[in-house]
Amino acid sequence: MDITIAIDAMGGDHGPHVTVPAALKALNSDSELNIVLVGLSDVIEAELKAHKATVSPRLRIHHATEVVTMDESPQSALKNKKDSSMRVAINLVKSGEANACVSAGNTGALMATARFVLKTLPGIDRPAIASALPSEKGNTYMLDLGANADCTPEHLYQFAIMGAMLVSCVEHKERPTVGLLNIGSEDIKGNEVVKQAGELLKASHLNFYGNVEGDDIFKGTTDLVVCDGFVGNVSLKTTEGLAHMMGKFLTQEFKKSWLTKLMALCAMPVLKAFKNRLDPRRYNGASFLGLRGIVVKSHGGADRVAFFSAIHVAIEEARSGVLRRITEQLEIEHLQPSTAVKNSQDMQ
Amino acid sequence: MDITIAIDAMGGDHGPHVTVPAALKALNSDSELNIVLVGLSDVIEAELKAHKATVSPRLRIHHATEVVTMDESPQSALKNKKDSSMRVAINLVKSGEANACVSAGNTGALMATARFVLKTLPGIDRPAIASALPSEKGNTYMLDLGANADCTPEHLYQFAIMGAMLVSCVEHKERPTVGLLNIGSEDIKGNEVVKQAGELLKASHLNFYGNVEGDDIFKGTTDLVVCDGFVGNVSLKTTEGLAHMMGKFLTQEFKKSWLTKLMALCAMPVLKAFKNRLDPRRYNGASFLGLRGIVVKSHGGADRVAFFSAIHVAIEEARSGVLRRITEQLEIEHLQPSTAVKNSQDMQ
Repeated sequence: MDITIAIDAMGGDHGPHVTVPAALKALNSDSELNIVLVGLSDVIEAELKAHKATVSPRLRIHHATEVVTMDESPQSALKNKKDSSMRVAINLVKSGEANACVSAGNTGALMATARFVLKTLPGIDRPAIASALPSEKGNTYMLDLGANADCTPEHLYQFAIMGAMLVSCVEHKERPTVGLLNIGSEDIKGNEVVKQAGELLKASHLNFYGNVEGDDIFKGTTDLVVCDGFVGNVSLKTTEGLAHMMGKFLTQEFKKSWLTKLMALCAMPVLKAFKNRLDPRRYNGASFLGLRGIVVKSHGGADRVAFFSAIHVAIEEARSGVLRRITEQLEIEHLQPSTAVKNSQDMQ
Repeated sequence: MDITIAIDAMGGDHGPHVTVPAALKALNSDSELNIVLVGLSDVIEAELKAHKATVSPRLRIHHATEVVTMDESPQSALKNKKDSSMRVAINLVKSGEANACVSAGNTGALMATARFVLKTLPGIDRPAIASALPSEKGNTYMLDLGANADCTPEHLYQFAIMGAMLVSCVEHKERPTVGLLNIGSEDIKGNEVVKQAGELLKASHLNFYGNVEGDDIFKGTTDLVVCDGFVGNVSLKTTEGLAHMMGKFLTQEFKKSWLTKLMALCAMPVLKAFKNRLDPRRYNGASFLGLRGIVVKSHGGADRVAFFSAIHVAIEEARSGVLRRITEQLEIEHLQPSTAVKNSQDMQ
């Protein structure tokens, strides 16, 4: 299936130096993919030239005169940067010229702009950020990872619907299991919001597993873990911190003496295989769910390998029709009027 | 300084089989320590005999006829088990016969019983659970780890006072830094409760660092990290899950072939040193703060090494006068009437 991905070529800590070669790699690996690179055309052209590449019917440049900086406030980006690479890439999704867009730009500005330009799906109050994480059994998907610090039970219910349909589409699982992140497995555990969300999920048509705890994320107890953006963001960053500390301590132990250095040398192939298995670059690309269009956020510091993963997430979502699936499920759950489906013909 | 620790000898998955030898080890390592083993006297005596030990002026047995099971509800333990080893151990703290107590029994029952018997300190609304975690710079203390799923800004402020005084006493730091767990470092980030707690902490006499994020826990950015019990519990369990998965994956990689097994053999001393450095048994022993007495909770599945660590936490807290320090700081923060100090003479 032919699809077109708009790429905010200027976004992220490294801009076109990362986004352009990652886009070229994506084009090479997928013959039915078209890419629009959005940003300052001379900078993008120079980067293409450096990689001995040129524009073609499959690789277009869409000029945009402004760039949203990594520390710019969402309000400023929204108000003052109407011709930013980020916004124009999202506009291409809105107009139907692209099936999805990818940006490594700042999260707040991207979310605010995406929400302003695309609007939320009928039946969805707030968009949420979802991502795949490695687990002992494969991938666990989790949302919200930071878009919504304060949530109502209804928000969590909507997140569950969006997340379950994402997993269903991307992992090809008919009825993915949904876990509600809590501090105990019994129904009576947790705060009031979570308790009420549990009731909504029990009454839903989703494959609700029940409460899960923090350790269930990496155990892979359920396909999807639902939580508010505060808990999700803290959990995710806590694990990043732990992984960093463990890596540092392991390196320190191996560097203690010439003998331990020798041991490190002996074990290097295994340590490399281990590191590769958990390589965070393979999990780069968070989905903004709940919008009338597909927006994928790459880590700002992503390198080419990581940004390529984010493009891949956008491709998967666009091809599998995740927006249609979410809309259908919202209707099954009676969360939107059935006419809304007809009104959202711009969604593929 | 001579102190006495009451041990719930029957608590935990392994009961006296773990608690008794750990107590004997503690007595051997500290000549100014006295221990009271609380529980079924014949069972404890048999365990002592198995270790060729007997009662002495430093090691007493206090008979208690009942045992709180690991899955018993707090309500049931409180109502039906008035002569449980758990409750009697806490009674000894209340009466002043012991300076602190340690239990590996079920968390909910222990918290409910401790709160009922000891009551909270004047100025404290709710007790919280605190523990040390390893970090790149030493230890980071964190609370609440699960006692309070719903918190107000005032609760978080009280947790910060209690936690800071714990760190001050146990780590011998005059003015430990206090971080407020949030989803961004800017003041405007986070949910409403956290924003308001930040205002209270800024206006306090504590050494408030500001907001910290999940990865700061293991970076060791601040000495103390404050959060509600929902977020704290989820974070802690998430890291347990990640550590378990990483350990499993590393083992799998090393077991892939005879060659990788040989590599594992070569690197074994380093891997062991690494494992030892992060050994969770060394961090066993969570403090119930905010009560009019010292209660330390050991992990239910603790072995002798881990339970010994929990006893050590109780010893440190008792010797360093953490209750007095919390009371003094509450007065500095104008959170309790100055007369309250005089009314709490039973606290050492």
